[in-house]
Amino acid sequence: MGPVSPGVWKSSGTLADGREIIYFDESPGLGRAEVPDTRPLQPIPGPGGEPDAGLRWDALRGEWVVIAAARQDRTFLPPPGECPLDPSRPGRPTEIPAPDYDVVVFENRFPSLRGAGHWPPETVPEGSGLGSDSPQRNRSAATPPETGGVAGRPAYGRCEVVCFTSDHEGSFAGLSPRRARTVVEAWADRTTALGAMDGIAQVYCFENRGEEIGVTLHHPHGQIYGFPFVTPRTATMLAEAQRYAEQTQGNLFDDLVAGEIAAGTRIVTRNEHWTAFVPAAARWPFEVQLFPARRVPDIPALDDAERTAFCDIYLEVLHRLDGLFGLALPYIAAWHQAPGRDEFARREFGLHLQVLSVRRAPGKLKYLAGTESGMGVWINDVLPEEAAQRLREAG
Amino acid sequence: MGPVSPGVWKSSGTLADGREIIYFDESPGLGRAEVPDTRPLQPIPGPGGEPDAGLRWDALRGEWVVIAAARQDRTFLPPPGECPLDPSRPGRPTEIPAPDYDVVVFENRFPSLRGAGHWPPETVPEGSGLGSDSPQRNRSAATPPETGGVAGRPAYGRCEVVCFTSDHEGSFAGLSPRRARTVVEAWADRTTALGAMDGIAQVYCFENRGEEIGVTLHHPHGQIYGFPFVTPRTATMLAEAQRYAEQTQGNLFDDLVAGEIAAGTRIVTRNEHWTAFVPAAARWPFEVQLFPARRVPDIPALDDAERTAFCDIYLEVLHRLDGLFGLALPYIAAWHQAPGRDEFARREFGLHLQVLSVRRAPGKLKYLAGTESGMGVWINDVLPEEAAQRLREAG
Repeated sequence: MGPVSPGVWKSSGTLADGREIIYFDESPGLGRAEVPDTRPLQPIPGPGGEPDAGLRWDALRGEWVVIAAARQDRTFLPPPGECPLDPSRPGRPTEIPAPDYDVVVFENRFPSLRGAGHWPPETVPEGSGLGSDSPQRNRSAATPPETGGVAGRPAYGRCEVVCFTSDHEGSFAGLSPRRARTVVEAWADRTTALGAMDGIAQVYCFENRGEEIGVTLHHPHGQIYGFPFVTPRTATMLAEAQRYAEQTQGNLFDDLVAGEIAAGTRIVTRNEHWTAFVPAAARWPFEVQLFPARRVPDIPALDDAERTAFCDIYLEVLHRLDGLFGLALPYIAAWHQAPGRDEFARREFGLHLQVLSVRRAPGKLKYLAGTESGMGVWINDVLPEEAAQRLREAG
Repeated sequence: MGPVSPGVWKSSGTLADGREIIYFDESPGLGRAEVPDTRPLQPIPGPGGEPDAGLRWDALRGEWVVIAAARQDRTFLPPPGECPLDPSRPGRPTEIPAPDYDVVVFENRFPSLRGAGHWPPETVPEGSGLGSDSPQRNRSAATPPETGGVAGRPAYGRCEVVCFTSDHEGSFAGLSPRRARTVVEAWADRTTALGAMDGIAQVYCFENRGEEIGVTLHHPHGQIYGFPFVTPRTATMLAEAQRYAEQTQGNLFDDLVAGEIAAGTRIVTRNEHWTAFVPAAARWPFEVQLFPARRVPDIPALDDAERTAFCDIYLEVLHRLDGLFGLALPYIAAWHQAPGRDEFARREFGLHLQVLSVRRAPGKLKYLAGTESGMGVWINDVLPEEAAQRLREAG
C-alpha cells in the first residue's frame, strides 16, 4: 500500500490467529507486513465464542456497561525482555512479527469489544445512535430494561493497540515531532477505517500511561476503541451543545475556547493552530484540554499544518506535565471525537484532546472516592488557575 | 435532649471553632456534649472566607464541580496515637472533647462544602433543583455558561464526619448489631437535620474504607454531605425512573428488585426486609446493592424492623466481602436517597445502599482508565453472576 500522507507508508498483514496488523512506516518498501507470524495461536473466537463477555444495560443510569471477564487473564506487567509489544527477535516472537517498526497498530489480543471487521454486526445494540440525531444517543430508549434476566447484547466492536515506538523504554513525551506526526497519521487512519465499519458508532483514541492508573504494559502504546454505541460522555457533550445552540444560537465549543483565551488565566500554552488550557471546572489535579483554533469534528479532518502544530504543542504539554514534579507523570490522554454517523455532531462537535493526571503531589494521588464514585460529584483539591500557573512555569 | 429512638440518646455541643458536634449515646445522662473543647482554634471562616473554594460549572458536561483547594492541607494518615477521631485524653485533645463516645457526628474541619447551618444560603446555585420537578435536576438550565471567566458559585453546603466507634482499630464490619443500629439512627437524624437546612437539596451518607481508595484517616468513620444541588448520579436515576414510569406505568426500582429476585443468579443474601444482590450491569469487580423490600425514599422513612434488619444483612455482606480474599476489602458504601424537596423523587425513588470495591484480586485493583475516565464507559473484568457466587460462598 502507498503513503497515507507525505512521509508515512502503510501496509497491512494478518497475525497467526487472524487479527489484523497495520504498519505505519517512515520510509517506503520495508516489507514489514510480509513478515509472517510464526506463533501457533488458536484462531480468534467467532460470534458467540466468549460467553463471559457482553454489554449489559444499567437501567438505573441508562448506560451500557462492558463485561469482559475473559480479560482477567491478560498479560500483566511482564518482566523485561518478555514484552509482547517489542518487535520480534529470532527465537522470541511477539505481537509484532517484523524485526523493527516505527508505529504499528494491531487488534488487541484481549479485547473487551470484538467482531468488527470480522463478522457482520447483526447483534449491534438498539439505540446505539447509528444514524440518529437523538439527544439520548447512548440510550436504549425503545425497550424498557428486561430487569428480570440480563438486558444485554454481544460486546461487538473493535479494540486496537497502537505502539508509538519500538523502544521499550521510550514514552510519547520522548518521541521526535516526526514520530509524533506518524502517530497522528495512524490515529487519523484508524478513525476513518473503524468509523467505516458496520456497527461502529464512535472511534476513541487514547493513552493510559503509568502503573498508578493500572497500565499493565510499560511499552509506550495507546489504544483505539470502536464502540457500537455513542459513549455516555460524548452523548452528554452533544446534549449540552444542542441545548447551548438552542439557547444562544452559538457553538458551545467555540465559545468555551474563546472564553478561555479571553480570560487568559488558565492558558498553559498556545501556537498558531492550537490552544492548551486547564479547564475552569477541572476535575483532576492536573488536567489540560487541547483545542484546535479551527473547529473540526475529528482527527481525519485536521489539515497538514494543524497536525504538525498539534505535535509541537502536545509534546510541549507532556514535557511540562513531566516537569511538574520532576517525574514521569501518570496520565490519561483522551481524544474526544464526533461520532461518525451523527449529523448534528459532524456539524457542531469540537474535536479536542483531554489530558488528565491522577497525581496531585509527589506521593499523593487523586482517588475517586465516595462523592465521585457514588454521586458523580468531583472534588478537586487544586485551583485550576494555580495548576495552569504551575504548568506555565514547569518544564 | 432525649432519645432519638428507643435506646439512642442524642445531645449537641459546639467545638472551639464554632462547629457543631452531636453525640449519639447508647445510654442516657452521660453529659458528653457538655465537655468543653479546650483547643485554641480559630473560628471557622464566614461567607467568602475561602477564595480557593467554590462550585464551578462544567459547561461540556452540564455539571457542577467542587473546587476545594484549601483541603490540600488536611490531615493525612496521622501516626498511631495522633488520630483526631479518637476521644480526647488528658493532654491530647482531639476533635471529640468527651473522654469516650458511642457514635459521634461533627462538622468536618476541612470541608469541601460549608455554611449550611451557619449562615443563610443567599448564594445557593441556580438550577439546584430546589422545589423543582425537572429532569435536569443538576443543571443550570436557565443561564448559558459564562464561558469567559468562571461560571461559579460559593461551595455552600455541609460536610459532617460520623465516627462509628471510639475504637481506633475497629471497622464497620466489626460493629455489634446494636452499634450498627446506632449508626443508622445517626444517619437518619442527620438526613432529616441537613435536609431541613435552607439551601440543601440532597443528603448523602457514605463511607470510604481503605488506603486503596485514598482514605486519609484509618479510624472507622463515614461522612455525610449536604449538597446544594441534586447530584448528577441521582439526577440520572430520577430521569431514568421518570422515563420508565412514562413507558411502563411501573416503578423502575420495584421492577429492578423484583427482577433480581426472580432471576436469582445474582442474589447474595436476603432477609425478611432486605435483598442484597450484585447488579446485572455491575461496574466494579465486587459491587452489591441492598434494597429494602418496601420502597422508601430515604433512611428516615425506614421503620424500626427495617432498620434492625438492615444491620443484620449489611454486617453479613461486609463479612462476606472481607471473606472474599481473607483481607479487609477496600470499599465505598454509598447511600442513594431521594432529594428532600423533589416531589417525584419522594414518591418514586427507591432508597438503596451501593457497596463497591476496587479490588479485583489480591494485589490487583480496578483502575478508572481511559474508557471510564475519558468516555464514561465502564469495563468490568468480573462476571456479575460469578461475583455473586463467590460472595455467597465467602465469609
